Amino acid sequence: MTGKFIVLEGLEGAGKTTARQTIIEALNEQGITDLVFTREPGGTPLAEKLRQLIKHESEELITDKAELLMLYAARVQLVENIIKPALNEGKWVLGDRHDLSSQAYQGGGRQLDQHLLSTLKNAILGEFEPDLTLYLDIDPQLGLQRASHRGALDRIEKQQLDFFQRTRQRYLELVRDNPKAITIDASQSIEQVGTDIKSAVKNWIQTLSK
Amino acid sequence: MTGKFIVLEGLEGAGKTTARQTIIEALNEQGITDLVFTREPGGTPLAEKLRQLIKHESEELITDKAELLMLYAARVQLVENIIKPALNEGKWVLGDRHDLSSQAYQGGGRQLDQHLLSTLKNAILGEFEPDLTLYLDIDPQLGLQRASHRGALDRIEKQQLDFFQRTRQRYLELVRDNPKAITIDASQSIEQVGTDIKSAVKNWIQTLSK
Ligand SMILES: Nc1ncnc2c1ncn2[C@@H]1O[C@H](COP(=O)(O)OP(=O)(O)O)[C@@H](O)[C@H]1O
Ligand SMILES: Nc1ncnc2c1ncn2[C@@H]1O[C@H](COP(=O)(O)OP(=O)(O)O)[C@@H](O)[C@H]1O
Ligand SMILES: [Mg+2]
Ligand SMILES: [Mg+2]
Repeated sequence: MTGKFIVLEGLEGAGKTTARQTIIEALNEQGITDLVFTREPGGTPLAEKLRQLIKHESEELITDKAELLMLYAARVQLVENIIKPALNEGKWVLGDRHDLSSQAYQGGGRQLDQHLLSTLKNAILGEFEPDLTLYLDIDPQLGLQRASHRGALDRIEKQQLDFFQRTRQRYLELVRDNPKAITIDASQSIEQVGTDIKSAVKNWIQTLSK
Repeated sequence: MTGKFIVLEGLEGAGKTTARQTIIEALNEQGITDLVFTREPGGTPLAEKLRQLIKHESEELITDKAELLMLYAARVQLVENIIKPALNEGKWVLGDRHDLSSQAYQGGGRQLDQHLLSTLKNAILGEFEPDLTLYLDIDPQLGLQRASHRGALDRIEKQQLDFFQRTRQRYLELVRDNPKAITIDASQSIEQVGTDIKSAVKNWIQTLSK
């Protein structure tokens, strides 16, 4: 049996990294222990080099289109070289961000053309998509406040608040239309978010065996 | 008045770099001396980093799609940050490769989906295109023989002969349908190729003032 691909999505500081441990526990309790972890952009040597180019400040203006193309170049390397082989071996893959981030940040935040975004998604990924997306919804101000404790902000994190508001808006629209996505209220306490995530994952796993 | 964008295209060893000096002379003789030189992929700090990632061998399999996306990421940086500003300042730009290379190598050589290629071209470059393309046509065996004197082959140059035959085929098809492209028989002597290029450039410049 092939494995499943579960993805955590949400703004910076929403709690994606924090949620990882919770999901590992939820899966372990269901007897699923053979896990692979990915983060995007990144996760292969080439994709990590692209991540550096995308995230780091440089003298040169990085155009929105180049950013989008580098994100997809990193993604196709990760999907073809890591995620698909792992799933085919029966492993479960837990992803910190995936395609929905590009749809929300580049589509909503950067306001790149919708047609370009959907064409790229279809041409590069085809039918491939997560089996379950957990979207951690948070007000950008609260998220950025939480994330600011992590240290210096990178090129993306330095965007203005309205960029993140547009990104959140797009996330909400996309998740609403996606039957494989669940929204978690990430403004709650760490404990409550953890409880919500655990029950969402367990309920979803129940539906699989039916 | 805005400048013009002239591009040299052709397989490795066709004589693009050799032709550069010839074109500089032809332009200088017409009083055009304010020139900018570009090469693709490359030509900005980010684009040159992408060039390294594209051309160098690595342990990781570079998917054809990632290669294509990185080429376009490099191209959009070069076009937006270097070529368009130069043309707007009235400079002429002489390019060693441009979009036609992707159409021929990734479309013909790699046999990537035609729809993906044309969508990317339109979405990323829009109406932007060279004012004149000089396609140096050569049999791949002769071109590779010439280029082999340059030293170690890079990841692209190491492709099999049929890859380059498909690439040449696609070049010929695209140039035939492009009224802004001129084919030069690059199998001739350096002197004869130089003469042909010079007269093609001068004839073309004549048509501009009409
Ligand atoms: N529900 C929560 N309430 C308060 N703080 C939280 C919550 N979830 C995460 N944090 C804290 O916020 C910061 C960012 O969380 P993190 O999991 O790294 O977010 P992300 O990976 O989505 O950017 C961390 O310091 C984390 O401990
Ligand atoms: N018409 C020609 N006949 C013979 N050798 C040539 C000719 N044009 C170029 N060369 C030689 O072939 C090699 C490759 O030429 P180059 O201009 O670098 O090709 P490209 O830039 O298209 O890869 C160089 O050593 C060059 O001197
Ligand atoms: Mg994180
Ligand atoms: Mg050359």
